[in-house]
Amino acid sequence: MKYAIKNLELIDEKDAVIPVTQRELFSSFGVYESIKVQNGKMIHVYDHLDRLFESAKILKLEHAFDINSVKESLRTLLAENNDKNVSLKLQLIGGKDPSLFAFTTDLPVYPAEYYTDGVKVISYKGERIFPHAKSNCLLLNYMAAREAVTAGALDAILIDRSGFALEGSRSNLFAVKSDTIITSEKDVLYGVTRKRTINIAKSLNLSIEFKKIALKEIKEHLYDEVFITSTSMGAIPVRTIDDINIGSSFPITSLINQNLI
Amino acid sequence: MKYAIKNLELIDEKDAVIPVTQRELFSSFGVYESIKVQNGKMIHVYDHLDRLFESAKILKLEHAFDINSVKESLRTLLAENNDKNVSLKLQLIGGKDPSLFAFTTDLPVYPAEYYTDGVKVISYKGERIFPHAKSNCLLLNYMAAREAVTAGALDAILIDRSGFALEGSRSNLFAVKSDTIITSEKDVLYGVTRKRTINIAKSLNLSIEFKKIALKEIKEHLYDEVFITSTSMGAIPVRTIDDINIGSSFPITSLINQNLI
Repeated sequence: MKYAIKNLELIDEKDAVIPVTQRELFSSFGVYESIKVQNGKMIHVYDHLDRLFESAKILKLEHAFDINSVKESLRTLLAENNDKNVSLKLQLIGGKDPSLFAFTTDLPVYPAEYYTDGVKVISYKGERIFPHAKSNCLLLNYMAAREAVTAGALDAILIDRSGFALEGSRSNLFAVKSDTIITSEKDVLYGVTRKRTINIAKSLNLSIEFKKIALKEIKEHLYDEVFITSTSMGAIPVRTIDDINIGSSFPITSLINQNLI
Repeated sequence: MKYAIKNLELIDEKDAVIPVTQRELFSSFGVYESIKVQNGKMIHVYDHLDRLFESAKILKLEHAFDINSVKESLRTLLAENNDKNVSLKLQLIGGKDPSLFAFTTDLPVYPAEYYTDGVKVISYKGERIFPHAKSNCLLLNYMAAREAVTAGALDAILIDRSGFALEGSRSNLFAVKSDTIITSEKDVLYGVTRKRTINIAKSLNLSIEFKKIALKEIKEHLYDEVFITSTSMGAIPVRTIDDINIGSSFPITSLINQNLI
């Protein structure tokens, strides 16, 4: 039997269901996390649980869960499932009777050449609401990711009304210019791997500049490297955006990715 | 036993559940409808089913359902539940294996004085994505509606980046100026009751002007009447917005509401 967690209790994953009559679910009034599990260990678990609770706070999603109890229930889940290398998904749904679910899925695997040769991404126009919250209101991300798949791209970069490339549909975005890495501090999700990337860059004596990156500047080759980060990806360099070649050598991205692993 | 419909089949409502592992659900990749049922009859059922399918089309949500089969399954649901006066909810969730659910809930009841005295609404800043689709990406609407409840208001009017009052969190918005009714054609949901309101206004020899209504103009009393419409409400006049009195006499709204019933 495969287990899941509902409200801190172990249940059969088959019973981890939500009634279609539950309004909050269909109002996207929920927040989520994906935690990487390696050799049975939850990676940066407190960063993820802190952000889950922070996302809930941004939406004023009230609940009675506390981080340590949640963490303990996740440990139990991994032990009972004998899960060693998985992606651990958390869903906290709001409303009168908030519910917290956790279950595990396969870890996504990225080919080694993504890291050496870079990947293709596309741009997709649209702005997330409450961008600092990792909420279930993901229609824009879903549509963008689907268009990326259709185009044979790894991800879609969301472009705001002013033409700034803010973040990927499931990643954060960085650019590199000589010894400076650049990323937006505004209107993006504060990814756990984004934060680690910034700290690694500091430890490598790189400068950090917080500003929005214009899509036009990327396409006009103003940056030495562009890369995307996520919990499952680490740091993956971007070779083309909308089929425009923007780089073929990614020394800084590689260095950061080595430190992320 | 209370019944629901899943993929055209009658099931126990208790079994109308969705696994938390279903990605599309948590990506808001779904569309919905609420149909009013009076004396066992579904009101404007084809308008609602047309829009459900149109919403799906806007999102490129592929499915194999057809309007007549869906309608037949809804008839069966109402007959088996012996539902006479209810709100009929439909949920069409996309993905590899799209699913269609239907279930019934109590009809909301609005006090008679809402229609004679008008109601309080608040303004709430934010823009829906894919506004012509009645999608499940409803976090903005949920947050706005919750703030309305907290303020003791019936609804929250969504205000776009340019200060235009586009629509309510669960209603469409109209203004009246002498013998003209005004509503936006852009960036709003094409409500079934909105469409009926426009047709009724025409039959009453009122002019229709399609333009966005500035919140500032409402607050500066540029309009004779302001009202909101929805399937469950009909047409309800607005007395105050953000506690600013904008009207106390609503002859056109009353006339339209009488024709909507």
